[in-house]
Amino acid sequence: MTELDTATLLIHCPDRPGLVHDVTGFISSHQGNIVDLQQHIDPSEDTFFMRLEWSLEKFSLEKEEIAARLQPMTRRHEMQCRLKFSSQKKRVALFVTKDNHCLYDLLARHEAGDLPMDIPLILSNHEFLRPAAERFGIPFHHFPVTKDTRSEQESLMVALLKKEKVDTVVLARYMQIIGDEMIEAFPNQILNIHHSFLPAFVGAKPYHQAFERGVKLIGATSHYVTAELDQGPIIHQDVMSVSHEDSVADLVRLGRDLEKTVLAKALWLHVRDKVLVFRNKTVVFS
Amino acid sequence: MTELDTATLLIHCPDRPGLVHDVTGFISSHQGNIVDLQQHIDPSEDTFFMRLEWSLEKFSLEKEEIAARLQPMTRRHEMQCRLKFSSQKKRVALFVTKDNHCLYDLLARHEAGDLPMDIPLILSNHEFLRPAAERFGIPFHHFPVTKDTRSEQESLMVALLKKEKVDTVVLARYMQIIGDEMIEAFPNQILNIHHSFLPAFVGAKPYHQAFERGVKLIGATSHYVTAELDQGPIIHQDVMSVSHEDSVADLVRLGRDLEKTVLAKALWLHVRDKVLVFRNKTVVFS
Amino acid sequence: MTELDTATLLIHCPDRPGLVHDVTGFISSHQGNIVDLQQHIDPSEDTFFMRLEWSLEKFSLEKEEIAARLQPMTRRHEMQCRLKFSSQKKRVALFVTKDNHCLYDLLARHEAGDLPMDIPLILSNHEFLRPAAERFGIPFHHFPVTKDTRSEQESLMVALLKKEKVDTVVLARYMQIIGDEMIEAFPNQILNIHHSFLPAFVGAKPYHQAFERGVKLIGATSHYVTAELDQGPIIHQDVMSVSHEDSVADLVRLGRDLEKTVLAKALWLHVRDKVLVFRNKTVVFS
Amino acid sequence: MTELDTATLLIHCPDRPGLVHDVTGFISSHQGNIVDLQQHIDPSEDTFFMRLEWSLEKFSLEKEEIAARLQPMTRRHEMQCRLKFSSQKKRVALFVTKDNHCLYDLLARHEAGDLPMDIPLILSNHEFLRPAAERFGIPFHHFPVTKDTRSEQESLMVALLKKEKVDTVVLARYMQIIGDEMIEAFPNQILNIHHSFLPAFVGAKPYHQAFERGVKLIGATSHYVTAELDQGPIIHQDVMSVSHEDSVADLVRLGRDLEKTVLAKALWLHVRDKVLVFRNKTVVFS
Repeated sequence: MTELDTATLLIHCPDRPGLVHDVTGFISSHQGNIVDLQQHIDPSEDTFFMRLEWSLEKFSLEKEEIAARLQPMTRRHEMQCRLKFSSQKKRVALFVTKDNHCLYDLLARHEAGDLPMDIPLILSNHEFLRPAAERFGIPFHHFPVTKDTRSEQESLMVALLKKEKVDTVVLARYMQIIGDEMIEAFPNQILNIHHSFLPAFVGAKPYHQAFERGVKLIGATSHYVTAELDQGPIIHQDVMSVSHEDSVADLVRLGRDLEKTVLAKALWLHVRDKVLVFRNKTVVFS
Repeated sequence: MTELDTATLLIHCPDRPGLVHDVTGFISSHQGNIVDLQQHIDPSEDTFFMRLEWSLEKFSLEKEEIAARLQPMTRRHEMQCRLKFSSQKKRVALFVTKDNHCLYDLLARHEAGDLPMDIPLILSNHEFLRPAAERFGIPFHHFPVTKDTRSEQESLMVALLKKEKVDTVVLARYMQIIGDEMIEAFPNQILNIHHSFLPAFVGAKPYHQAFERGVKLIGATSHYVTAELDQGPIIHQDVMSVSHEDSVADLVRLGRDLEKTVLAKALWLHVRDKVLVFRNKTVVFS
Repeated sequence: MTELDTATLLIHCPDRPGLVHDVTGFISSHQGNIVDLQQHIDPSEDTFFMRLEWSLEKFSLEKEEIAARLQPMTRRHEMQCRLKFSSQKKRVALFVTKDNHCLYDLLARHEAGDLPMDIPLILSNHEFLRPAAERFGIPFHHFPVTKDTRSEQESLMVALLKKEKVDTVVLARYMQIIGDEMIEAFPNQILNIHHSFLPAFVGAKPYHQAFERGVKLIGATSHYVTAELDQGPIIHQDVMSVSHEDSVADLVRLGRDLEKTVLAKALWLHVRDKVLVFRNKTVVFS
Repeated sequence: MTELDTATLLIHCPDRPGLVHDVTGFISSHQGNIVDLQQHIDPSEDTFFMRLEWSLEKFSLEKEEIAARLQPMTRRHEMQCRLKFSSQKKRVALFVTKDNHCLYDLLARHEAGDLPMDIPLILSNHEFLRPAAERFGIPFHHFPVTKDTRSEQESLMVALLKKEKVDTVVLARYMQIIGDEMIEAFPNQILNIHHSFLPAFVGAKPYHQAFERGVKLIGATSHYVTAELDQGPIIHQDVMSVSHEDSVADLVRLGRDLEKTVLAKALWLHVRDKVLVFRNKTVVFS
């Protein structure tokens, strides 16, 4: 289905009867054919959520017209609405420091065609992974962030990202705090991978914390970055078994497999417009 | 959501534009409020699948009227359609032999209110588990099936099930072949638990087969029973890790956990009308 | 291997060369045949751990003699040592409140012969599960614990447990705090099942906490009870996937499967003498 | 522990009393300190298995002497014995065709220091992945195997591998049958990754077979290559959940994550000398 030319609507609004009928009526009245529809009601919030993807093959409206034509309906139902087109690939910047596993994993998936997105640049606070970027022919930018220069460097980083029309930032084991300017520039568009099963082991050195506590599973969590450290909406999580035989170094080594697969899955969901954020939680359509 | 008075439609038909709009129009035109809608298209079969559950609280049609009123639409779109009501609990017969783990597990879940269904009877080819049935106050019927008496006994069994208005049969580690008469009486209504990850290790003694092959995971599979042994539509499967240290007896012991949770999950999906069978495969709505 | 008459040694001591040789020398010099040996060194603590199980079939020492004969060696190496015999089944008291799933699960496993132990009594702060206990013919004791009576009731409970020669207590969803007197009477012999992936969601209502945080996995943790709430040594943990579609009630229902399998696995490890506690962590031999 | 200079013994022999004592006696009499010992008896075969790793720091024998000095003991007990040194890194050839995911995954792990081995060459029946090899600076050899040239090409391949002192071959999604000459040259030293949960879906196009059967889990299996296709000793396996929504293309995409992690885990076990083959099954020490 990936190669179809489709439009996707991600909607949430107060629940009321007839919502699905109204939205699907809009699609079918313009000769759109729905290829995927998922709808969910959260009774505790009395809120309606829907993801709707339809083929544009015979659709009678131009892409540019759709948003305006939807407005009467979305206003009537107080809908929060995102409209996306499969033809507009996301432009994703990868932020790294020294660990290579998430970076290579994402680059290999991208090269294999598994991640429908563009990677205009790789950005780092170190020179360390420049050769890795160059191997894959992707521009590498070094921003030597320190405590004192963070805010100044971040302004330069945001300017670069804007210039390169980046819409998504992936912290692929980027070992620096992200500041408010960046977070405000990319709300719910910055994906982080935290190397624990959040909310366990927030903050620094989660594998050391896990070792100290003697847990029998380690985890990884991908979430959107918000102003509160490690508290943003969770997109995906996974765990694996460990034992008393595993040292901290073993946990670090084993955990890399989790980190890279969890981050890649979260990014895949993000670039396919499967994720909707509502009140610091995600609705993840399948 | 379990306690709502709802109706559920399970539909499949050739895919065409406007199907969701038509069906949801029927619901909203009679003041129904959709509580769950999941739709799926299988492009390889060009087939449309949908599960739709709506509240009957303000619905303007009586339950008895709904099927007839749906007919024009279902005919127009060549829809295969099942209509179910949450108020009509399934009547489930449990078939057992000697192993108690699936039986106790289902009885405990039922007592805890986790399985919305009635259990009018437990049936066995042995006397062995009569005390277990009696502990939970459920009528126990012994049918001493042998090779020679199978067909005759099965006729008596079907008669009993019909008399008790049973609509679902669960083979909770029932160690006898099910014959054609039973299968035809309960098409896609007989759930089995096979103690392997099908299609690996079809037939007898799957744990012995698994041990011989030296697999590192063992599995369990719940499927609907069809005329071909262990070949029916798969509803749910799961696996667990094992090692060279595990003897056949260990595999048997460990596998019980899989068998009971996989069977219970499949049965939960079945009694909640989440499963649709199409061409020897299942569509399992979430 | 379960039916063999065996002795098991659980040892930890400062690491030094020759430990395995010394211990195995003791066994072979008395015609014992080792059926399982696992050894582990924690380099961060410079500590040696070993579990050794040997057949008593041709062993030349009486069971009563073994401990005394081991003393010279254990003193020489400053060994902490536990000696267990497969012929001495553990006597396990089950503590419950209202939830039946862990209770029925353990009773069914016990009846099937999967848990080599005796269950002399079930104890509860409610009358609710008395019928369940009676179904399985196990004495049920009601201790109506309240805040004000806790310490007094607990003294009575400990007295009963001592009288019944109980050596292990299983909190099978027992909804009361365990006080110091009980903890001191059964050090590292009280198993709890906490319905979260510890250390996430310590304390009350972990499924509500999990729902609020929007996690994508829920967990369960079995640990030994210590004076600090939910902080004891972890024996076993597991998780399962959940989604935005799951309400708190769904998490509670789904979580029961985790709770019962995790607790049963931990208890199996405990009664088979596979668990060694060291500095608030467990070494779990396979 | 990786950086220690150690020797490892992998032993199997008929079970009898005193084996552990004898072997550990050899180590301690030469001032070796055991860092890991795992022992296992298969009662169904009456066979003893052991992995023993000891530090060479203060060991009084030279590496070259050890094998000869062990001989009296190994002969006495009819031991099959493999002796390995951590200082002698395995030399591993990667065989690929067109899929890049396993290749990049192994190269990234190797670069990160997670796989203690050398990669003297990458070999392929296609030119397609030459650029990937060149990015990582590893010699790439193209052998244009066809049905008619297989046997001739394979002789050339074996000659190259011998010349490069390769001891392990990894079929990292290499889409050609391996012939007898290669298998005989590298007995239990050729690792394959099969994209199914063996023994389900042997042979070609396992994801298509899985889709047809409607399984709810897909798997991957790493095994040693033997003369019978997909029948060699299994080293490691894993699975993941799939649903009716997943097309064959989805299964192929999702399965890549399994394939690369399962192959990498199996290779890690192999290069760390954790795997012992006995009668077409593996004993995998932890």
